[in-house]
Amino acid sequence: MSQIAKRTIMTPGPVEAEPRVLRAMSAPILGQFDPAFTEMMNETMAMLRKLFQTNNHWAYPIDGTSRSGLEAVLTSLIEPGDRVFVPIYGRFGHLLVEICERLEAEVHTIECEWGTVFSEDKVIAEFKKVQPKILACVHGETSTGCLMPLERIGRACRDEDVLFVVDAVATIGGVEFKVDDWFVDAAIGGTQKCLSVPSGMAPITYNSRAEAVINRRKKVERGIATEQDQTQPESTIIRSNYFDLSQLQDYWSPRRLNHHTEATSMIYGLHEGLRVLLEEGLQSRFERHIYHEKALIAGIKAMGLELYVEHEQKLPVVTCVTVPNEIDADAVRSFMLTHFGVEIASSFGPLHGKIWRIGSMGYSCRKENILFALSALEATLLFQGAAIESGKGVQAALRYYEA
Amino acid sequence: MSQIAKRTIMTPGPVEAEPRVLRAMSAPILGQFDPAFTEMMNETMAMLRKLFQTNNHWAYPIDGTSRSGLEAVLTSLIEPGDRVFVPIYGRFGHLLVEICERLEAEVHTIECEWGTVFSEDKVIAEFKKVQPKILACVHGETSTGCLMPLERIGRACRDEDVLFVVDAVATIGGVEFKVDDWFVDAAIGGTQKCLSVPSGMAPITYNSRAEAVINRRKKVERGIATEQDQTQPESTIIRSNYFDLSQLQDYWSPRRLNHHTEATSMIYGLHEGLRVLLEEGLQSRFERHIYHEKALIAGIKAMGLELYVEHEQKLPVVTCVTVPNEIDADAVRSFMLTHFGVEIASSFGPLHGKIWRIGSMGYSCRKENILFALSALEATLLFQGAAIESGKGVQAALRYYEA
Repeated sequence: MSQIAKRTIMTPGPVEAEPRVLRAMSAPILGQFDPAFTEMMNETMAMLRKLFQTNNHWAYPIDGTSRSGLEAVLTSLIEPGDRVFVPIYGRFGHLLVEICERLEAEVHTIECEWGTVFSEDKVIAEFKKVQPKILACVHGETSTGCLMPLERIGRACRDEDVLFVVDAVATIGGVEFKVDDWFVDAAIGGTQKCLSVPSGMAPITYNSRAEAVINRRKKVERGIATEQDQTQPESTIIRSNYFDLSQLQDYWSPRRLNHHTEATSMIYGLHEGLRVLLEEGLQSRFERHIYHEKALIAGIKAMGLELYVEHEQKLPVVTCVTVPNEIDADAVRSFMLTHFGVEIASSFGPLHGKIWRIGSMGYSCRKENILFALSALEATLLFQGAAIESGKGVQAALRYYEA
Repeated sequence: MSQIAKRTIMTPGPVEAEPRVLRAMSAPILGQFDPAFTEMMNETMAMLRKLFQTNNHWAYPIDGTSRSGLEAVLTSLIEPGDRVFVPIYGRFGHLLVEICERLEAEVHTIECEWGTVFSEDKVIAEFKKVQPKILACVHGETSTGCLMPLERIGRACRDEDVLFVVDAVATIGGVEFKVDDWFVDAAIGGTQKCLSVPSGMAPITYNSRAEAVINRRKKVERGIATEQDQTQPESTIIRSNYFDLSQLQDYWSPRRLNHHTEATSMIYGLHEGLRVLLEEGLQSRFERHIYHEKALIAGIKAMGLELYVEHEQKLPVVTCVTVPNEIDADAVRSFMLTHFGVEIASSFGPLHGKIWRIGSMGYSCRKENILFALSALEATLLFQGAAIESGKGVQAALRYYEA
């Protein structure tokens, strides 16, 4: 195949994969019912429980990219007409709404200005007015670089018998996220961000409250259902076969009832990525992300650039930078990629061209990448005539690292 | 990670991956908008057109396992109440029905005994009675080892303005399948079978007739829609965001409008798998599959075993063998895997325990694998006391190869 360039990827995903993960993915195929493979599936479940900080039985990946995990959870939980509450503070809150609307949920939203987040009290007060079946919320919003505080919302949901569903795609493995302590009923993670596994799988977890809803909708598919399988569910059927968690559970249990053919090489990658993560330790990993974020911020500011988000609820793994006046944001990104092989991101909708988003996630979150990204950004801006401080950014980061 | 055993995989999928594919998958990550990556996306589309033998513009993979491709196509085409006709001749016909029913289609079926197929005339006569919007059919049914003749059905569908959708998951790249010549409106392939790429992607193609239906349902998602994007579709909205082909088209076009994050390493694998396939040549590849099938059949029969399917519509890439009386089918499979590292498959539902299914697909379809599978099967059956011919199976295959 054509030679694949080696990039320095400083976007909010996909980021550079762990080298050990890439090696694992080149291992030969095992059959999906081979005991060597099902043992790996079980090990993956056990490690996912640690990642999500949960004792939930169910913790396994959906075979698709991150949003497949969002859709699998929401499709399996939501029946037409169900009331869902979504606080929106960026693009991925809108995505949750989009998925719920397509499922014919009655969706209620509140929205705040992009670049800000809600207080927990506000969210709790508003959802109580709506009395939804489900409250769905994004934990880390990569489109704006904000982190929503969630510690107390789940407890309030539990008290009102509301299911609390959290999109932790951007934060899982990089920022503290506690499924059990925070009373999260279902959570969805991503592989291609802080886990540093390639895109293509979405780890999920859910507890017995969510499982009860799913099981009432269970129908084993035609062609493999046996006599003991109920043919008609107690509740409305799940509208998707591929995303039917009640059937996926049977595949991820000792019954191993065939559903799809598990994505072998992606499981190898996820399995190895989780091993790398647990060897480092969750807390050390969270601290590493904050440590390098500080170097990045020091460099950006010393260069004379402004952060788009600088409040307490800044997402540690995504740093948004305001594009200086009269600078073409996309031209800068393209120049950095062409000459330095360094990739940073634009944003979506109203923020496109207004901010750059610099990710510092997983394997990409390391000293040389921070220094190289700052060097490339500074040189590019100087070359394009931006009024920034020459030579200051990298020096500030180096002083931080040497301190 | 724990050492992954090297197996000889002779199932109907997943089969052994091409070594070049596995090496390609260990390449470093590229960003999803990196020109080096989008060029690879375009090359993949061009090669998929050759694989499907089509001039369709749209030919790209869905990020999920094979059934994700089935669901993406059907979800994007079917509106609630639409009439769909499905001729069923095995488990995967039932799967098509299952997906359509969950989409609230009005599904009409005919079913024949497992192990047989319909004549084209029968299918044509029956669908004309129903006057459906869509006729959905499996090309190669791995559950029974049968191949449905499709050459004339598409022409009849076109005359009646019916959309002809074909599940070519098991046949693509291994058995002749001509999208344009056979008037197929939409087709779905699989990676983990005759392509010998790991499970986790589903290549699809569809023509302008199918695209017209999809485009009438188009709605760009909230959070990224711009002013020129229509916010309300002309027709009912597609019920899935993840499987919304109208949005995936925007991502697989020069607009590159972000949807999900493309599964980078799987694209590397598919891209390389298609290169390997086109270097061999489609016709040579089809012939290779038939060549080794003959050796396998010669060996099975010389051993004194019976084929479950021996008629003209036998699927060349899956050979089903009747389990002899008083032999435990699963114990044989387990013994073969444990002692020889050779995997063959059971079947589903009514056929479980009654037949073994031996795949000869893609990279797994080569002389040493055929000989090793026959050796392992014979030795296992002898060890378990089956009344078979000792030493005859492998000799028959060797005579075939030496002739």
